[in-house]
Amino acid sequence: MFESAELGHKIDKATYDAEVPALREALLNAQFDLAQKAKFPVVILVGGVDGAGKGETVNLLNEWMDPRYIQVHAMGEQSDEERERPPMWRFWHSLPPKGKVGVFFGSWYTAPIVQRALGEIKNSKLNQRIEEINRFEEMLCNEGALIVKFWFHLSKDAQKKRLKTLEKDPKTRWRVTKFDWDRFNIYDQFRKVSELALRATSTAEAPWIVVEGSDARYRSLTAGKILLEALRKRLQEKPQPTTSKSPPLQAPIDRLDVFDRLDMKQKVAKKKFDTELEKYQGKLAMLTRDARFRNISVVALFEGNDAAGKGGAIRRITSALDARHYRIVPVAAPTEEERAQPYLWRFWRNVPRTGKFTIFDRSWYGRVLVERVEKFCSEADWMRAYGEINDFEQQLSDNNIVLVKFWLTITKDEQLRRFKEREKVSFKRFKITEEDWRNRKKWDAYETAVCDMVDRTSTNTAPWILVEANDKNFARLKVLKTLCDRIEAALKKRK
Amino acid sequence: MFESAELGHKIDKATYDAEVPALREALLNAQFDLAQKAKFPVVILVGGVDGAGKGETVNLLNEWMDPRYIQVHAMGEQSDEERERPPMWRFWHSLPPKGKVGVFFGSWYTAPIVQRALGEIKNSKLNQRIEEINRFEEMLCNEGALIVKFWFHLSKDAQKKRLKTLEKDPKTRWRVTKFDWDRFNIYDQFRKVSELALRATSTAEAPWIVVEGSDARYRSLTAGKILLEALRKRLQEKPQPTTSKSPPLQAPIDRLDVFDRLDMKQKVAKKKFDTELEKYQGKLAMLTRDARFRNISVVALFEGNDAAGKGGAIRRITSALDARHYRIVPVAAPTEEERAQPYLWRFWRNVPRTGKFTIFDRSWYGRVLVERVEKFCSEADWMRAYGEINDFEQQLSDNNIVLVKFWLTITKDEQLRRFKEREKVSFKRFKITEEDWRNRKKWDAYETAVCDMVDRTSTNTAPWILVEANDKNFARLKVLKTLCDRIEAALKKRK
Repeated sequence: MFESAELGHKIDKATYDAEVPALREALLNAQFDLAQKAKFPVVILVGGVDGAGKGETVNLLNEWMDPRYIQVHAMGEQSDEERERPPMWRFWHSLPPKGKVGVFFGSWYTAPIVQRALGEIKNSKLNQRIEEINRFEEMLCNEGALIVKFWFHLSKDAQKKRLKTLEKDPKTRWRVTKFDWDRFNIYDQFRKVSELALRATSTAEAPWIVVEGSDARYRSLTAGKILLEALRKRLQEKPQPTTSKSPPLQAPIDRLDVFDRLDMKQKVAKKKFDTELEKYQGKLAMLTRDARFRNISVVALFEGNDAAGKGGAIRRITSALDARHYRIVPVAAPTEEERAQPYLWRFWRNVPRTGKFTIFDRSWYGRVLVERVEKFCSEADWMRAYGEINDFEQQLSDNNIVLVKFWLTITKDEQLRRFKEREKVSFKRFKITEEDWRNRKKWDAYETAVCDMVDRTSTNTAPWILVEANDKNFARLKVLKTLCDRIEAALKKRK
Repeated sequence: MFESAELGHKIDKATYDAEVPALREALLNAQFDLAQKAKFPVVILVGGVDGAGKGETVNLLNEWMDPRYIQVHAMGEQSDEERERPPMWRFWHSLPPKGKVGVFFGSWYTAPIVQRALGEIKNSKLNQRIEEINRFEEMLCNEGALIVKFWFHLSKDAQKKRLKTLEKDPKTRWRVTKFDWDRFNIYDQFRKVSELALRATSTAEAPWIVVEGSDARYRSLTAGKILLEALRKRLQEKPQPTTSKSPPLQAPIDRLDVFDRLDMKQKVAKKKFDTELEKYQGKLAMLTRDARFRNISVVALFEGNDAAGKGGAIRRITSALDARHYRIVPVAAPTEEERAQPYLWRFWRNVPRTGKFTIFDRSWYGRVLVERVEKFCSEADWMRAYGEINDFEQQLSDNNIVLVKFWLTITKDEQLRRFKEREKVSFKRFKITEEDWRNRKKWDAYETAVCDMVDRTSTNTAPWILVEANDKNFARLKVLKTLCDRIEAALKKRK
């Protein structure tokens, strides 16, 4: 992969000086169009060999382009905030919105490649990380992002020469540290691992572009021109409808689904409810105050039919929790800022630090429920969402987040009863709108979507809990008990 | 993933009898359209729990549909032919052409899932296989295939009950063997591994469809209807142009490429050539007759400029080989049968058994050379080909195939000289056509394509060997020496 980047590419000063002004103007124009149309974000990755001009190129891009629409993210050591979340959190956090350019100086590739080169992780782990990266970038591309991946390369000789030259000059001696020579000593290993990683992640949508780094003018002009052509090509493209190539999902031919097997008549009488409620709230309070809880976190998400009682169930949880440690995230229509990002972005924003308890009142499953049924997104979009959601949740689990997913279900009759009651009772009237009645008409379409969701996202690590909610007492206790069980099991594992 | 397939789905006989005739007719009609239009192949995978009706469903599909256009591949133990080739060879071999249906009873999923459930392979290995499967299926989808993946499921209780029932009846007792009970004993493990594999391979383009297997009528009608709708949906789709989303590849801005660094003046004089030729042909003869050679195989591929002397170089190799053990595969325009398959199919056909020596005179690189330059395929197609080719070659390497890739290069002047000579000399005139002159006009476009090819497919395991071929003697010796070195290194590793 590096053959062409060890040839001694060079651009003379006269050519450089003659070409740069036009390039800068063209880049600014392209950037202006990008910002005006705001149809897609641009993600630029800058990686490569130390001393190959990564930093210089980033500085130059910043200088050449309009700084209002470009943001550089130098990814060094993780902060506290970052360490307590899944590794990809910091990158999600920094994704550019549509119309803007994000430059990642150090990216999701850095850690896996360096760790493997140093022998800190095995090949199988590297392959796993590569696989995660491919899925992540595929998602970004599907969400419309333009990804430009630069790898700045130096041959071993060139790197050595550079370090020696810097060391000789008293003015630059300070720039060469033991760290640089340590890195140089693993050059061969680094090169081998990089080659493997670059090859495995050079997809048709986001191929790596290897640039020889020894000559500054060649490097800068190359990066600028490649970026310009990439922007121009994408800006000229007409948006295409995304058609789903998958066989259509079909409801069971006998109309039997997971809800038919639920016993919707289950009830808990008032007196028993009061005793049990106190018991499980007490247990939840103890568990979340356990010392070991500081090493895990909890994400509980609630989905369900309209009027199924999500709010009431949530209140029975939070009254057992310490207000400093929990947060409720109500999920409604996305904000303008959120619409300019991949759809999972607004949920990544809310991934808790360790020791915290986060409750999502509705969630990322909106993609395969309301967005599917109301056709807010295309079939291809919600079909790929199942896999993207599973990937997301896997990352949560890997980071010691106990994820508990509740679907609160009521029968169609019970919903009607509750709707009517809400219309009658003055303090409940704000809870019922025209939209609820409209949704009710699509009961069957929603039920199909829910069944597909359960089939495709209920996993060993994060199973769906179907909660029979015709009786509020029963539902609330089932939610509390399940939460306690799951947290208890997680704490036990931590000893 | 299995929730909906443990509900006890059932279809009564009256419903079944009423629905089947129309379904069969519709399936036959869809199959007729498929065959007439011959725009895409249909790949049906049948997997799942033993006893869940996999075999019965396959038989039924065969019965319902037109047997001329459907072929069932029961993938049991590997044959000799198969064992000596990469694991995916047998599946490539059996892929249906456009317009036809291929049913895989046992598929590329079987071995990884069963091996992991039995603890024969580790999780990291399973993940690697899953990743390979995803890339393979992605390639099939990109090549237009409709993939329908059925997983027939039984709960643990249902499987046990089925085995017991069969055992009780003297007429069916013979059907239950120790093997069945052994399999039953790893049910939990099998389920867990299957869930993981199904989830990780349920992509937007080729999602798994889990079908409860206990009731034959439900199972059959479900499979038939799903297949019908999948066929209908795809038959109705209008073909869409595939646009490449990647940033455009660009030639180096200083026009310096790998060929500029070659010393094209290298020559070998007649006398020295004769001695060296004898020496290296002798060495090659010895190496390929070494006992250890029976455990490896060699694939040597030749690409190069027109008139660069591929044929002559190949003859200098083959004259050292045993005619029973080598084969030359000349690659010209694909046949009708080959055009109805993914483009790598015709090369998979020719992957050698162990102990064999195969020479490709031109190769799969046509995709990123002539097909790219002449626009026989879209940019999106050749962009993804780099990754697909790397995957293919990795499988060859993993299977102890020594892959040696030669690019024979001559200068533009030398080509002109040879073209003119060919026109003059009567016995060489068949070697020069109008097309050669046309190609020559696209010299620069080809050179760009070759450089991209080298950059994106020269890897540690299978590097490109650029051969300076202005002097035929020099080129022929370099080819022979390189081959000897690579084979010698491979034999040494085998002790």
